Amino acid sequence: MTEARFDVLAIGNAIVDVLAPCDDAFLAEERVDKGAMTLIDTARATELYARMGPAREISGGSAANTCAGLAALGSKAAFIGQVANDQLGEVFAHDIRAAGIHFDVAPREGDPPTARCLILVTPDGQRTMNTFLGASQHLPASAIDANLIASAKVLYLEGYLWDPDDPRAAMKGAIKAARDAGREVAFTLSDAFLLDRHGDDFRALIDGGQIDILFANEVELLGLTGAASFDEGVAMLAPKLPVLVATRSEKGAVAISGGQTASVPAEPVAKVVDTTGAGDSFAAGFLHGHVNGASLAECLTMGAIAAAEVISHYGARPEADLKELVAVRFG
Amino acid sequence: MTEARFDVLAIGNAIVDVLAPCDDAFLAEERVDKGAMTLIDTARATELYARMGPAREISGGSAANTCAGLAALGSKAAFIGQVANDQLGEVFAHDIRAAGIHFDVAPREGDPPTARCLILVTPDGQRTMNTFLGASQHLPASAIDANLIASAKVLYLEGYLWDPDDPRAAMKGAIKAARDAGREVAFTLSDAFLLDRHGDDFRALIDGGQIDILFANEVELLGLTGAASFDEGVAMLAPKLPVLVATRSEKGAVAISGGQTASVPAEPVAKVVDTTGAGDSFAAGFLHGHVNGASLAECLTMGAIAAAEVISHYGARPEADLKELVAVRFG
Repeated sequence: MTEARFDVLAIGNAIVDVLAPCDDAFLAEERVDKGAMTLIDTARATELYARMGPAREISGGSAANTCAGLAALGSKAAFIGQVANDQLGEVFAHDIRAAGIHFDVAPREGDPPTARCLILVTPDGQRTMNTFLGASQHLPASAIDANLIASAKVLYLEGYLWDPDDPRAAMKGAIKAARDAGREVAFTLSDAFLLDRHGDDFRALIDGGQIDILFANEVELLGLTGAASFDEGVAMLAPKLPVLVATRSEKGAVAISGGQTASVPAEPVAKVVDTTGAGDSFAAGFLHGHVNGASLAECLTMGAIAAAEVISHYGARPEADLKELVAVRFG
Repeated sequence: MTEARFDVLAIGNAIVDVLAPCDDAFLAEERVDKGAMTLIDTARATELYARMGPAREISGGSAANTCAGLAALGSKAAFIGQVANDQLGEVFAHDIRAAGIHFDVAPREGDPPTARCLILVTPDGQRTMNTFLGASQHLPASAIDANLIASAKVLYLEGYLWDPDDPRAAMKGAIKAARDAGREVAFTLSDAFLLDRHGDDFRALIDGGQIDILFANEVELLGLTGAASFDEGVAMLAPKLPVLVATRSEKGAVAISGGQTASVPAEPVAKVVDTTGAGDSFAAGFLHGHVNGASLAECLTMGAIAAAEVISHYGARPEADLKELVAVRFG
């Protein structure tokens, strides 16, 4: 195995977030599931956008956010995702490259436009996502560069990729390329509602030994395993995975690997402003520790630090100096 | 004179801000005047964008920001400005309408694209603006709706409109429409560098009695009058204007009207994050007081409160509840 050029290569939907505050009554009127990710079509996107408040646009996309966190921590990251040749596509490509992340998927010509996620942020900081996948759903298998995958220590995939047909199909090839090259495959379940649509696929991947590192939050863990409690779910899943990382928002996180268990509390946050990207950033911190040979507990702490930073402000990518925040803790 | 439908009708460049942090060394390398507004062409916009860091997009434009402040305070505002029929144009139009501001200028087809301002924010919170005017410079005289102007108590114009040819020409008609309808004309000098290009025009407007309310910061005041000190500049200008509002950043602001003088200190701010829109918000607060018959001192205080809010976060439009912030002070 040649030396890795990248620490992590992530594949995900290439999305620009459109974030606006709203109250809980607005979510009720719009009949959206608070805290969830709902796919929307062009008509619904137009209608919801017209009704939501003044917004700000910040590049997002779950795995892309994880790349931004990794880069901010000093890891070498690369990203594969599909934008259109339009202004939001330029914004996404600019932001990911400006963060120091390798990104060379050519923009797609014509309709549909670049993906956007209309994110409604309630006063409690909770984010509710309405995703118009646009060009992102047309990520072709040809964009899955096996050489690029082989050049990264870890291949990181977001569960959201299983919604659109082309990327879902392409992911099988990506996982095979990573395994053939002797690289690790990390996977995040992304959203509990995905389990209704793709739970069997995810369970087959895990049972088939295709996943080395699994990220799941509490609701996803229960949905995936059918367990009655967090602890039961962890006990069911852990034996099937080299590394299981289970997050519980303000209750902290647990990681299990090779019979060892570590846990951390959530980092204190002065005010939870916007939880968008919390899980993405947690994964970034954990993976940064992992590729640098940190202990399980250290990996979790890095995850918790990165998550706390990102929920302290609007937008799913780091604004503070993450490297410094981690250095302060680890000396 | 019929009852006014709007408190303020503002005309300005319709711009989406692209904000990114940078250090002072970057400004030096890029040879931009720190704190100023520099006009840039397509080539320079492409080059500078490629070199600046990950950014966020938030609707801006000086007079449009003032409308957003006015609307947040509870005043009825309308805006005239030109966007293109593209994604950033949709963003601008959405944000201004979602703020409750009347805006019905049709987007312009074809090139150039919607205006954007590449804003570099240094650690001291100072903003340095690089403006690509795009479609905004093609605001046609036909967009200056005399009936709309007559329906607002105050016509508010930004000095920035004097840079592009079409809007500059259109402004004469706008001022005439307001004066013919017996409405007040408010004007902001916008940027000291504009005085090199349009100082004679601005002085002619003031000397000709076309301006009722003038907003100027200290540097603009000195540039306009040639005075050696702030006090001298105020003394020279005040007799020519029904209302003069002179701002001095952290040193507060002064207003003179009908021989009366009022002054306020700057509002305390926990941390100056981004000064973009400070002057725009100050004007919003002042004008909100003015159209509601507040005293000079009260108008200044509302301006100071609105300015303090906007410099406490990234972006030039209010995020906190300005109405509440003002209510707390005035009971």
